[in-house]
Amino acid sequence: MTTKKYLPLLLTVTCAVTVTAQEVKTPKLNLMPMPASVKFQPPDRLVVDSSFKVATRGHTDARLQAGIHRFMRRLEGRTVLTLAPGIVPGDQMTQLMIQCEGAGKNIPSVSENESYRIDITDRQALLSAPTVVGALRGLETLLQLLDADRTAYFFPAVQIQDQPRFPWRGLLIDIARHFQPTDVLKRNLDAMAAVKLNVLHWHLTEDQGFRVESKKFPKLHQLGSDGNYYTQEQVKEIIAYARDRGIRVVPEFDIPGHSTSWLVGYPELGSAPGPYTIERRPGIFEPALDPTREEVYKFLDTFLSEMAGLFPDEYLHIGGDENEGKQWDRNPAIQAYMKQKGIKDNHALQAYFNTRLLKILQKNNKKMIGWDEILQPELPKDVAIHSWRGTAALAEAARKGYDGILSNGYYIDLIQPASQHYVSDPLPADSTLTPLEAKHVLGGEATMWAEWVTPETIDSRIWPRTAAIAERLWSPRTVTDITDMYRRLAVISLQLEELGLNHKKYQDMMLRRLVRNDDIGPLKTLVSIIEPVKEYRRYQLRPQTMLSPLTGAVDATTPDSETARKFSWMVQEFLNDGPRFQLYQTELIQMLADWQTSGASLVPVIDRSPALKEIKPLAENLTRLGETGLEAISYLKSGMQPPKEWRDRSVARVDEAAKPYGALEFVVIAGVKQLVMAAADAKP
Amino acid sequence: MTTKKYLPLLLTVTCAVTVTAQEVKTPKLNLMPMPASVKFQPPDRLVVDSSFKVATRGHTDARLQAGIHRFMRRLEGRTVLTLAPGIVPGDQMTQLMIQCEGAGKNIPSVSENESYRIDITDRQALLSAPTVVGALRGLETLLQLLDADRTAYFFPAVQIQDQPRFPWRGLLIDIARHFQPTDVLKRNLDAMAAVKLNVLHWHLTEDQGFRVESKKFPKLHQLGSDGNYYTQEQVKEIIAYARDRGIRVVPEFDIPGHSTSWLVGYPELGSAPGPYTIERRPGIFEPALDPTREEVYKFLDTFLSEMAGLFPDEYLHIGGDENEGKQWDRNPAIQAYMKQKGIKDNHALQAYFNTRLLKILQKNNKKMIGWDEILQPELPKDVAIHSWRGTAALAEAARKGYDGILSNGYYIDLIQPASQHYVSDPLPADSTLTPLEAKHVLGGEATMWAEWVTPETIDSRIWPRTAAIAERLWSPRTVTDITDMYRRLAVISLQLEELGLNHKKYQDMMLRRLVRNDDIGPLKTLVSIIEPVKEYRRYQLRPQTMLSPLTGAVDATTPDSETARKFSWMVQEFLNDGPRFQLYQTELIQMLADWQTSGASLVPVIDRSPALKEIKPLAENLTRLGETGLEAISYLKSGMQPPKEWRDRSVARVDEAAKPYGALEFVVIAGVKQLVMAAADAKP
Repeated sequence: MTTKKYLPLLLTVTCAVTVTAQEVKTPKLNLMPMPASVKFQPPDRLVVDSSFKVATRGHTDARLQAGIHRFMRRLEGRTVLTLAPGIVPGDQMTQLMIQCEGAGKNIPSVSENESYRIDITDRQALLSAPTVVGALRGLETLLQLLDADRTAYFFPAVQIQDQPRFPWRGLLIDIARHFQPTDVLKRNLDAMAAVKLNVLHWHLTEDQGFRVESKKFPKLHQLGSDGNYYTQEQVKEIIAYARDRGIRVVPEFDIPGHSTSWLVGYPELGSAPGPYTIERRPGIFEPALDPTREEVYKFLDTFLSEMAGLFPDEYLHIGGDENEGKQWDRNPAIQAYMKQKGIKDNHALQAYFNTRLLKILQKNNKKMIGWDEILQPELPKDVAIHSWRGTAALAEAARKGYDGILSNGYYIDLIQPASQHYVSDPLPADSTLTPLEAKHVLGGEATMWAEWVTPETIDSRIWPRTAAIAERLWSPRTVTDITDMYRRLAVISLQLEELGLNHKKYQDMMLRRLVRNDDIGPLKTLVSIIEPVKEYRRYQLRPQTMLSPLTGAVDATTPDSETARKFSWMVQEFLNDGPRFQLYQTELIQMLADWQTSGASLVPVIDRSPALKEIKPLAENLTRLGETGLEAISYLKSGMQPPKEWRDRSVARVDEAAKPYGALEFVVIAGVKQLVMAAADAKP
Repeated sequence: MTTKKYLPLLLTVTCAVTVTAQEVKTPKLNLMPMPASVKFQPPDRLVVDSSFKVATRGHTDARLQAGIHRFMRRLEGRTVLTLAPGIVPGDQMTQLMIQCEGAGKNIPSVSENESYRIDITDRQALLSAPTVVGALRGLETLLQLLDADRTAYFFPAVQIQDQPRFPWRGLLIDIARHFQPTDVLKRNLDAMAAVKLNVLHWHLTEDQGFRVESKKFPKLHQLGSDGNYYTQEQVKEIIAYARDRGIRVVPEFDIPGHSTSWLVGYPELGSAPGPYTIERRPGIFEPALDPTREEVYKFLDTFLSEMAGLFPDEYLHIGGDENEGKQWDRNPAIQAYMKQKGIKDNHALQAYFNTRLLKILQKNNKKMIGWDEILQPELPKDVAIHSWRGTAALAEAARKGYDGILSNGYYIDLIQPASQHYVSDPLPADSTLTPLEAKHVLGGEATMWAEWVTPETIDSRIWPRTAAIAERLWSPRTVTDITDMYRRLAVISLQLEELGLNHKKYQDMMLRRLVRNDDIGPLKTLVSIIEPVKEYRRYQLRPQTMLSPLTGAVDATTPDSETARKFSWMVQEFLNDGPRFQLYQTELIQMLADWQTSGASLVPVIDRSPALKEIKPLAENLTRLGETGLEAISYLKSGMQPPKEWRDRSVARVDEAAKPYGALEFVVIAGVKQLVMAAADAKP
């Protein structure tokens, strides 16, 4: 479910498009996701000093206490205050009182009550919640509320009443194409909790790897993983870690396609004789389980029952996507079986397969969820649909009575800006679903497909953009101000670092490795305004395998350039300030001059590092973009009309600079072009 | 063994002191530790391109293959080349041929042969070694040899013959005062291997924590660790990880003192009745095991036998340091026992305790090692001495026939520069030991005492300085050029990052957290020329407990400032260039002007972040140091004599700026003062 060749092109929304929304009442608060209701009552505030203590009232348990412990350590980390360890008895006056009504679900569930209230006065913060998970959500909001001024750290006086819009708010992590050790998962679970996501969708099997230990069929992980798999102990550890944070863990075993790695150890399950080797390329491949043989179902019965015992969540994801059925078409026994059983085509055959799977899951008290493709006429209504196709497909399923979640629009591996993901809504404003039908839309999941991520880079591919998706899934539909989203996202991004996330700090290291010394300044300038090419163009432009090093310039470069957004915005302001052209003139000239000199400085740097050779044209174009922009500003300032040759040459230069190299492209092209066009014609 | 109140002051050596040594033949190579012999034959070289392959000849095994695999991944990471996976059969022509004679010791041992040879021509690199560990050492040298120019990555044509000077080259990590998860240990083991260290001294127990699971006495870890301990499975995992890299793991169970955490669960072992709680302060504490009771030896017999089975190394470290015997003095039963047995004082009592311990260890086929204090007249000769006192104590032990290792001079927790550690030699040039006696000096260990380190900061406290200690312990005694050491250290420091070490990349994150946004420029300028106060002054100036957050400015600041070294050096060159005063004038003015403006810019930043308040005086002094330096340069340039008031005021300002705040101090004071004095008197 990743290399959708015909994935519908998502609506392209630039950061300049601001969807006007219900006025945001609390513009100074850095909350993300924005709560359902916030009342802000400055100047009252609750000071946080070394006397800060916390007590609980009502229900308490180990999970709540661990959550409070983590809260206090993070509060200490930010304030550098040594706070009293432990939790004070509930009858004492403390700065933070947590009043929890009950434990909630023993196993995190889609029906968990995650609501909470926060009431902060200058004497106390009262956090109340019906469940421990609600209290954990509230603690995250509290940490986001922490502010400071010259005198002290404090919580502003607010009243918050909050609950999620959707009950299923997930992050899919594909650890099959590139394996991620448990510490990577743990820090990402911490980050998920920080933005109130509640489902880790653990994509455990793929053509490129089988990543979970099976005691029943050990050749699955032994031969299908290069040794990179999770032991069952580690699986339990991750599930416990997630549960501690109120996060469900939904495992995916993607069948009947995407199953090459299963067939390395058990070729007899395949629809062609084999032998099979672990797939190293990205793409869609032919190997598929044979749905016509009883041994296959016997195997799946044993295997899925083992996994059903290992994973406590009520759902089990069976994938079901992108099986093109080529192995089936070529297998005479399968063809004969279809004829005999009156199965008219491969869709029907897969539907038959899913029906058999469903029985196995039901026997194990699991609900089935799978990708769009599993939706076939005969599918029972208690199966849920995971839609990569879009809201229309999701709505259609909902009308038929199927629960569903959305991932279309949330493919964070495609390197699109947060603003674009932010406008994807599982239940768009123009939805024609009845309220009852709409209840079938459970939420959505960001999808971290992992063709091109390693432990070094994965955090920067997930964060901070996924926080915007988390807001879409938690906050009221009306919270849609993209400018304010980006303002808050920058703050949240910093806070995520305290959880050990590397999304900000790894870039410098990767640049140092490429440059082979500490002088990364000019390369940082370049990298700040280029991005990896979008969608599935990276592999086309710069083919690699799953075994290739992901340490190139394209890997060190991150999506959703903040500098480029700032540049675009300054260009608008500057041009709108015509014919005076004063606003942001200094800043723009400084930025463009930096491009010009950095491009030149980069040439000798690249000449020392063959791995950077692929981006040499980008360095040259960086200089040209800087020069061209400076010339345009110079014309605009002077009020002189440039010669037509200048315009033609400049447009050609900018167009030339739009070409990708090393699967990287400039994201400031439009802004420079606007400067050129404005200079060329004062009345464009 | 950390808060030595009377630790002899180490000889202070600044980077300006260059010990002239055997001429370095290969000034362009970035090897650390420097091999015993290097012949460099430019311009020949072996190109590394995507056809690069490796083969083995002679002995091979899983450990060697895993080492080659890691080597290839790191080579790919740096070159961004996709290399063929796997190892080619040995009869094929490959760019790298590894010829290994045998497996070496099954359990890494102090008697392991770690030698290797490298011969690189333009067709092949031949790495030959008698053991797998030797081959692993050679692979690290190869990675350090990797170079590049405009056309390609390459290995220069060299002939290297190498073996260590000392067989015991360790890093002690105290994970008791602050716990470190296994991933921290693993990345540090990788770094140790990169600089050819071969002993992880695992300081597992302290007053402040008991960090290893005991199945025999579970209350040790259950009640003595706050839940932060290694399971026996994790211990095995670390030992296997270390063995894979040719590194021994020597556990330390520090007794009879430093044992508060043991007594929380088993107060009956103590010399006073208890109850005991985990110690949270730094320092030397009274609790000690009772050496007069048979139950204590029975307990230790069972416990140490359990640990002897868990840790395969032939040595077991029993600590034995800093027991001041106060509990013994006050215990009438102990006093009566001593009288009855004719034990004349606490030293003799501890010697009696050690003799009993030794029997337990011998029964378990373990050699005993302990700190200086265990050296008592009746100590058998097969016990080794770990000296925090110094080379004289070590030499004295060697003369008496005891093996020993040095840690005096290698206390990396004391925040001293690498140059200072670098001149500490276990066998100094003026040693009067006979060659036979000298053989008892086995090597040394850097000691990472952990009062003030967390997983966020520990790497920056260990690295890169420990690489200089590693060189002292591996390379010939004559390799002593400090300037060249620092040149190579900067390169090695970058390479350590590829192993996941955070010593460089965490600072920015910690500064962002303190500043609460991305604008850390001015704070970085300050932080680049201040360091935490040295030796044991931090706790005196800024008391904290083991439960305090280590997220302040002092934690974000690193030892051995490269910027300060550069500043000192430029000041020398500038002043030596008098009366012209041209050399580095521009650079100095730029640097001083940056201090001046950054100090001013920092004031509003600090006013937003109460946690930074403690360093506000440093920000103010930063401005003043910049101003004063600029004024001095201005006088020097003009050739004018400044008024006496200027001199007095400037000296006073600089002296004022020498005061520490927030346990941080400027390390550019001497340089600024030199400028002032030179300006005040052209003939100082």
